[in-house]
Amino acid sequence: MSHKIAGPEIERVIQLLGRLPGLGRRSARKAVLQLLKHRHDQMIPLADALREASEKLVDCSVCGNIDTNSPCAICADPRRDQSMLIIVEDIADLWALERTGAVKGLFHVLGGHLSPLDGIGPEQLNIPKLIERAHRPEVKELILALNVTVEGQSTAHYLMDALQGASIEVTRLAQGVPVGGELDYLDDGTLAAAIKSRRRLD
Amino acid sequence: MSHKIAGPEIERVIQLLGRLPGLGRRSARKAVLQLLKHRHDQMIPLADALREASEKLVDCSVCGNIDTNSPCAICADPRRDQSMLIIVEDIADLWALERTGAVKGLFHVLGGHLSPLDGIGPEQLNIPKLIERAHRPEVKELILALNVTVEGQSTAHYLMDALQGASIEVTRLAQGVPVGGELDYLDDGTLAAAIKSRRRLD
Repeated sequence: MSHKIAGPEIERVIQLLGRLPGLGRRSARKAVLQLLKHRHDQMIPLADALREASEKLVDCSVCGNIDTNSPCAICADPRRDQSMLIIVEDIADLWALERTGAVKGLFHVLGGHLSPLDGIGPEQLNIPKLIERAHRPEVKELILALNVTVEGQSTAHYLMDALQGASIEVTRLAQGVPVGGELDYLDDGTLAAAIKSRRRLD
Repeated sequence: MSHKIAGPEIERVIQLLGRLPGLGRRSARKAVLQLLKHRHDQMIPLADALREASEKLVDCSVCGNIDTNSPCAICADPRRDQSMLIIVEDIADLWALERTGAVKGLFHVLGGHLSPLDGIGPEQLNIPKLIERAHRPEVKELILALNVTVEGQSTAHYLMDALQGASIEVTRLAQGVPVGGELDYLDDGTLAAAIKSRRRLD
């Protein structure tokens, strides 16, 4: 049903909204209608917020987070434990861990996981930067908070090999994370427990 | 989980996206992350498309549709059957009927249904304008394409009473529409069949 009814301006919004995860064409149509009914308190504010975010936000040159400044607010926070790096696949995972309040250290966002079949090797991820950070003298512990999926765990194995020269402790989240689960979908309590009972890799 | 992690610019987008039907806070976060990863081919275009739509689109003064012009493209189309008015609750229903290709006449969008408990009477809907249109000499048939819900049908009954003086035929969609169903969720074939086998009210 790609038959077009609405004018090109509405079609364009439907098409762009329909590409968001969780929204298909039908939901996008419903969303557009709601926006059109609330032009001044929803549609224009959303346009402005998107424009503002796209203009103000930058990638943090240290950890790969997104913020209005680089380094980001987390990297720039002196109260953070500079000796601890938490490695995550995605910014959504960083947000999920931050929500638990259980993280005292700094983050490092890989931007995905290794996937040789898709041509995604270490160079395509934020891994060279991680190797460099891991060798800094202040870094004592590296927590691998990767998804407990095949890809996440093979990425973890790769990182363990790559970091063998560094004099740091490498830990991973406790097995509280269900196998096959993705961090961003876990409840905060499970995530907090998994951080607290992280165990050394041997 | 209203704990805020991301900066205010991201939070604002999450909050606004999260108010769209079909998107909760979690899906809005996923959506924002995708937008941030595709700033130039998704985020900025969406901001621009929303802004353009909000600036260019107006309510059609004749039928209540939304278009770049008033009267809208449907009302301004001389090939449309001017003797037939299809009454719908919402623009989504107009779109759904247009997609079937089974509509030759003009539309009239009520903007909802009567709901006395919510303070929504005829004056809050596009009904006075409908009464006026229905009395024009060229109008011969009025198709009530309202949702087959309690509210839709009581709105239909109200309209039948209000239009008793007009010398027009009032029809409604055939019973192909399942009871309790809403037009926008039906497949096009069912909708087209319901239009074709509409029956006279007595």
